[in-house]
Amino acid sequence: MSKRKELTLDDFIQGFKKRDLSILARAITYLESSRSDHKKMANALLTRLLKEGRTSIRLGISGTPGVGKSTFIEAFGKKITARKKSVAVLAIDPSSEKTGGSILGDKTRMNELAIDAMAFIRPSPSGKTLGGVASRTREALLLCEAFGFDYILVETVGVGQSEVAVSKFVDFFMLLMQPGGGDDLQGIKRGILELANIVVVNKADGELLNKAKVARQDLKNALSILRHDDEDFASEVFLTSSLEKTGLDDILNYLESTHQKLSQTGKLEEKRKKQTKSWFDQIVFGVLQEDFLQNEIVQQELQQGLKEVLDSKSAIYDKALAVVQKYKESFHDEN
Amino acid sequence: MSKRKELTLDDFIQGFKKRDLSILARAITYLESSRSDHKKMANALLTRLLKEGRTSIRLGISGTPGVGKSTFIEAFGKKITARKKSVAVLAIDPSSEKTGGSILGDKTRMNELAIDAMAFIRPSPSGKTLGGVASRTREALLLCEAFGFDYILVETVGVGQSEVAVSKFVDFFMLLMQPGGGDDLQGIKRGILELANIVVVNKADGELLNKAKVARQDLKNALSILRHDDEDFASEVFLTSSLEKTGLDDILNYLESTHQKLSQTGKLEEKRKKQTKSWFDQIVFGVLQEDFLQNEIVQQELQQGLKEVLDSKSAIYDKALAVVQKYKESFHDEN
Repeated sequence: MSKRKELTLDDFIQGFKKRDLSILARAITYLESSRSDHKKMANALLTRLLKEGRTSIRLGISGTPGVGKSTFIEAFGKKITARKKSVAVLAIDPSSEKTGGSILGDKTRMNELAIDAMAFIRPSPSGKTLGGVASRTREALLLCEAFGFDYILVETVGVGQSEVAVSKFVDFFMLLMQPGGGDDLQGIKRGILELANIVVVNKADGELLNKAKVARQDLKNALSILRHDDEDFASEVFLTSSLEKTGLDDILNYLESTHQKLSQTGKLEEKRKKQTKSWFDQIVFGVLQEDFLQNEIVQQELQQGLKEVLDSKSAIYDKALAVVQKYKESFHDEN
Repeated sequence: MSKRKELTLDDFIQGFKKRDLSILARAITYLESSRSDHKKMANALLTRLLKEGRTSIRLGISGTPGVGKSTFIEAFGKKITARKKSVAVLAIDPSSEKTGGSILGDKTRMNELAIDAMAFIRPSPSGKTLGGVASRTREALLLCEAFGFDYILVETVGVGQSEVAVSKFVDFFMLLMQPGGGDDLQGIKRGILELANIVVVNKADGELLNKAKVARQDLKNALSILRHDDEDFASEVFLTSSLEKTGLDDILNYLESTHQKLSQTGKLEEKRKKQTKSWFDQIVFGVLQEDFLQNEIVQQELQQGLKEVLDSKSAIYDKALAVVQKYKESFHDEN
């Protein structure tokens, strides 16, 4: 099928039925397109496909740079396909436009997985706002799910905001860490640990093995304190080595049995519904806040207001009310 | 001085100079008043007084109900006044209007402290929005600081949102916990532990003493992991018994030496400036969000939008853009 031909809704549906990966790739391209007819087509496809109700294991994977995410995902992905299961790897990286490249680059970071017929790797969509990028990633995930992937991995960069977004549309959120130079842990950012359902101490091999074991116990203790009010999911801490391929099967076994249990009890559906609601709210407020901050009058008022507040010339709440009022007034003349 | 007479700015300034607690109480009443002339007067007073630049030790105290907050604050407050230092106790409780009573009630929960001449206790202001309540509490704190209190304690109820607000205008945030029935800890809510600079395991007496010691060690470990990226303040875990009055002096010594060190290095001023900026942003967005959610058109659109999103009839981001657009359009006709 030519890459240049415009596709009809039926082309897409047939392509999905035949499990044609190039058609999936094009559907995601339509989703990310700035052309409204493409977007509309992608949404129509999504609406149509979602009725079929397939369910993948959705897994978010986070960790700061240097913790070995790509190597882990490659080794983990190969373990999945070795079980005759299919895997899609997506990424969310709101900074990709700034750095000029996607987090997954040209797939060269995952050589083996990239040529695996059971795997599909899709770089991060670009975009100016986290809300927009996160939305497209979520919709790409839904397309991959409808396509029939057994696993969908969503990689994030560990800076905080995108983790919160991703945790709202995956079933499990995995935090990858590595033992530090001393006794401490590297690769943790405040607030992210609390999002995690699964914590993995990576690079548990060679000289770092003993440190990794200590780190695992420390994390288990910390999580048992933090998890006090959350019975939804137990938090597990795994030791892995992407080099020696150890620990990966344990994670897969855990994911599969937990996912099955959650599906059977109806808790998975319940969680996904709650996520959709919470995520809709988040995106709405994100859009509102972005619009507000891009408003020129607001920008001036905020700058001036902060100055007054720091000089103690103004009560903060009154000033805040005034800034919001100015924002609203800026729409009076539009008609 | 009659309680009924309207006060002039000069009355207030003279009253503050004479350290007349009834004048402070009235200034706070003006601050919380719905009358705009009262509010203006309070703001003028605040602007005037802040120029004098007094500095209190500002301490937020949080913990879920049952953890012994009132008893702790009473015992702690008495330790402060025993050192010939003055203390003001404020409270922030956005639910106070609902329950019909303030968190500090009629002060009967703090009998001894309430009649201490070196202490001032002020119940929570009422209000419909957390932003409004938090703002008034912050301004009351500024008045108390200008009045010359050595310590200002701000009590919160441990539900999450008000803790985030308070952590933005105190120098130290203290989390009060108690040993649980088993080996675990009671009185922790996700996210609050990460706000804390000081953690106190209360009720460390009698049968609970050993459990409290274990809890302290667990918390120290957990905090050392969470604190990885925050060098601002060290996190300390103290054991106290409000009954046996133990551990309280250790906390006071720690607060005083740390506060002094932070003042001398300029870090305190830096922190307070950062807090003001972050708090201004938070209040602005809070006001914006409240206005948005109270808009009737938005309410309808959100409800309908969520339905469409759950039925997969609509792409979330597009729907979010549409809802915000409707909000903005609702101001077109106003002029």
